[in-house]
Amino acid sequence: MPRTKRPQAKDPKTKMTGKTTPPKLPKANAFYAQSGGVTAVINASASGVLTAAKEHKDRIGKVLVGKNGILGALNEELYDASKLTQKQVKALRHTPGGAFGSCRYKLKPITEDDSEYLRLIEVFKAHNVRYFFYNGGGDSQDTANKVAQLSAQKGYAMQCIGVPKTVDNDLPITDCCPGFGSVAKYVATSTREAALDVASMAATSTKVFILEVMGRHAGWIAAAGGLAADEPGDAPHIILLPEVAFDEKAFLQRVDRVVAEKGYCVIVVSEGARYADGRFLGESGGGKDAFGHTQLGGVAPTLAALVKDKLGHKFHWAVADYLQRAARHLASATDVEQAFQLGHAAVELAMDGANAVMPTIDRISDKPYRWKIGTAKLARVANVERKMPKSFITRDGFGITAKARAYLQPLIAGEDYPPFKNGLPDYLKLALPLLPKKLDADW
Amino acid sequence: MPRTKRPQAKDPKTKMTGKTTPPKLPKANAFYAQSGGVTAVINASASGVLTAAKEHKDRIGKVLVGKNGILGALNEELYDASKLTQKQVKALRHTPGGAFGSCRYKLKPITEDDSEYLRLIEVFKAHNVRYFFYNGGGDSQDTANKVAQLSAQKGYAMQCIGVPKTVDNDLPITDCCPGFGSVAKYVATSTREAALDVASMAATSTKVFILEVMGRHAGWIAAAGGLAADEPGDAPHIILLPEVAFDEKAFLQRVDRVVAEKGYCVIVVSEGARYADGRFLGESGGGKDAFGHTQLGGVAPTLAALVKDKLGHKFHWAVADYLQRAARHLASATDVEQAFQLGHAAVELAMDGANAVMPTIDRISDKPYRWKIGTAKLARVANVERKMPKSFITRDGFGITAKARAYLQPLIAGEDYPPFKNGLPDYLKLALPLLPKKLDADW
Repeated sequence: MPRTKRPQAKDPKTKMTGKTTPPKLPKANAFYAQSGGVTAVINASASGVLTAAKEHKDRIGKVLVGKNGILGALNEELYDASKLTQKQVKALRHTPGGAFGSCRYKLKPITEDDSEYLRLIEVFKAHNVRYFFYNGGGDSQDTANKVAQLSAQKGYAMQCIGVPKTVDNDLPITDCCPGFGSVAKYVATSTREAALDVASMAATSTKVFILEVMGRHAGWIAAAGGLAADEPGDAPHIILLPEVAFDEKAFLQRVDRVVAEKGYCVIVVSEGARYADGRFLGESGGGKDAFGHTQLGGVAPTLAALVKDKLGHKFHWAVADYLQRAARHLASATDVEQAFQLGHAAVELAMDGANAVMPTIDRISDKPYRWKIGTAKLARVANVERKMPKSFITRDGFGITAKARAYLQPLIAGEDYPPFKNGLPDYLKLALPLLPKKLDADW
Repeated sequence: MPRTKRPQAKDPKTKMTGKTTPPKLPKANAFYAQSGGVTAVINASASGVLTAAKEHKDRIGKVLVGKNGILGALNEELYDASKLTQKQVKALRHTPGGAFGSCRYKLKPITEDDSEYLRLIEVFKAHNVRYFFYNGGGDSQDTANKVAQLSAQKGYAMQCIGVPKTVDNDLPITDCCPGFGSVAKYVATSTREAALDVASMAATSTKVFILEVMGRHAGWIAAAGGLAADEPGDAPHIILLPEVAFDEKAFLQRVDRVVAEKGYCVIVVSEGARYADGRFLGESGGGKDAFGHTQLGGVAPTLAALVKDKLGHKFHWAVADYLQRAARHLASATDVEQAFQLGHAAVELAMDGANAVMPTIDRISDKPYRWKIGTAKLARVANVERKMPKSFITRDGFGITAKARAYLQPLIAGEDYPPFKNGLPDYLKLALPLLPKKLDADW
């Protein structure tokens, strides 16, 4: 692995809690960008980065932020987030979405065409950026890692630190991913609430309710719906995960049995639910995104039609879509705090001289839930998708185990309500000006 | 209008606040039932009924509750809700869904076949029920009115009081309907949150977001989405109401213009949105319910496909379905209080000798928002659907006016969070036994 010319901490993990004096580096600017699908707490990570940067103002000058993520760096469209007031930095913590804009944009493969990576380094040089904080999922950590490699190769001393983020909870090494806990809380709460509704109506009306949730390749979010059940037999009665091949016959049998026993059946289905041959249940939904992933949606109506056709039950279905990952009003206090601390820790890692790493959540214990910040090398994080372990899924494939509950439960703990004004959450609206460009726009 | 043999207050509205001594009636039992689609606050009305009944224990004996609404009376499946502890009655206030079960069941037309109405009176007689509280929408108020008429005709002295409830907010006379304020708050909050998400993603990904909400014939819920906008130009950019015939060309033009100007477009669409010829946009969704209403759903994907085909924009869509009306975690404090007070007032009306009436919300002023309880005759409420007035809809048909905002805003004011346990709302679960039957089940 390439190393920068900077002195680098051998073990940033111990360094972070240790009392060693960080090496004195010349004061430089930092760059921060949000990447990929946003979450209810990605701005809490931004708040953490900005808070920590202010604590190190002897070494960090401005914090430049890319307009719409990495595109802002490529196009030299930069905000100066150091200009935010303390109140605004605080308000970022309770504001969902990506306050500076995000993007789904995959850089050209560095082995085929390194022009975009070179442009990034050119922009960073022009703005004296020596700290690169990239807040995103697996694809983004891969990008951050490559920027670290290339800047080292090109002799431009820069520290690249990832800040994890993904509602999908599918990054490796870290125990969980910021954004997930809040979606999990939303999905479990919504499942519990909708189940009470269906239970009331089932005698004469809706007997089957289907909630479609996110999770392209990993079933973490759908699994979290299982937390709605306090006791065996409580809703949801069926969870459909991407990890378990969809078996139409077994599914319909189960629905019928639950309706016969309980009077109604509540189903949580992952958008990534698929047949044994790999086809998604909701494949008809759309095209492909910038990363070539199939754009999903529409599993719930597909399943509802199946239930209606084969069993004749009256149904209702909901597709939570963006509502689930933007629902800051119901964020998990644990998730918000971890998102903030990971942003903060990313800056601390940089101050400790680390490069091409990402702070992680290390779980110390389930009950009581205790965690600390660890680190992972970006090379080990990039492009690895962590699926649900088999031990988290019941043998019949339709539910979650006690082990899964023990893992999931602490992540939704605690409420962290945003302030309300006129009956609605009072979220931060930024209107920052772009910094003047220093480079030719025509690169 | 037929009158009961009981002395009846001439003007229950003034009676309620007046100091007149109610006529002394023999102590009797009350019957309460929940009807139609449930809401986040229908149990708050139940809580109000039970609280008030306890305050009048000299005159009200047991409060019998129908299992699954009026079906419970027909089948003589009754709970004794007087057995609930004070803690349970309090917990009803923060528990969504219908705690005793509801139903969609329309009694046979009394002019063709009065057997069901007669059965009701027989059951009420058998259980010494002299107070009938029916918690529902327009269809239910019609039923309550007919029970009042028939019991009077048959010489069975019984007071029938409606308790309004409907997320659709389409009952006449009352300024608003319990259940609506909380859905309105949920839809406005979700629109604001999802809009922040879309705004973050629009540079490279989703440009059009569509949220489908309830509202079969009246656009109140979709209109409430408009509260998400603080300033002109804020999301939602387009609201599609059942009151305005869908004009495909004008819609697509507007979407395109908003995307060109803002970079993205957020749309809130009512499930009842329809073409000029009356066809629903989402008509393909399903069959018909017990009242012969077409079962809707799927407007959002229909619109999304249209946007994709004609404009090529990348889209996301959400269908909130039961999530919106069950979302007690985000209830409007105003709505919860009104639901409780209307339940309470229904009992007070009965104690004042009223019959065939329903307590209403009378608005005194917008700013500051002040309201009081009024009354309406059931005959004037039954089967009348109140649509949005023209003055609430902008001239282009795609938005709400300042007048609409002034009406809607107070209804979503205030938060009333349920207690949480292990990261989830701690809702009441009842497991009441059914009372022994006194009548032949084979009626």
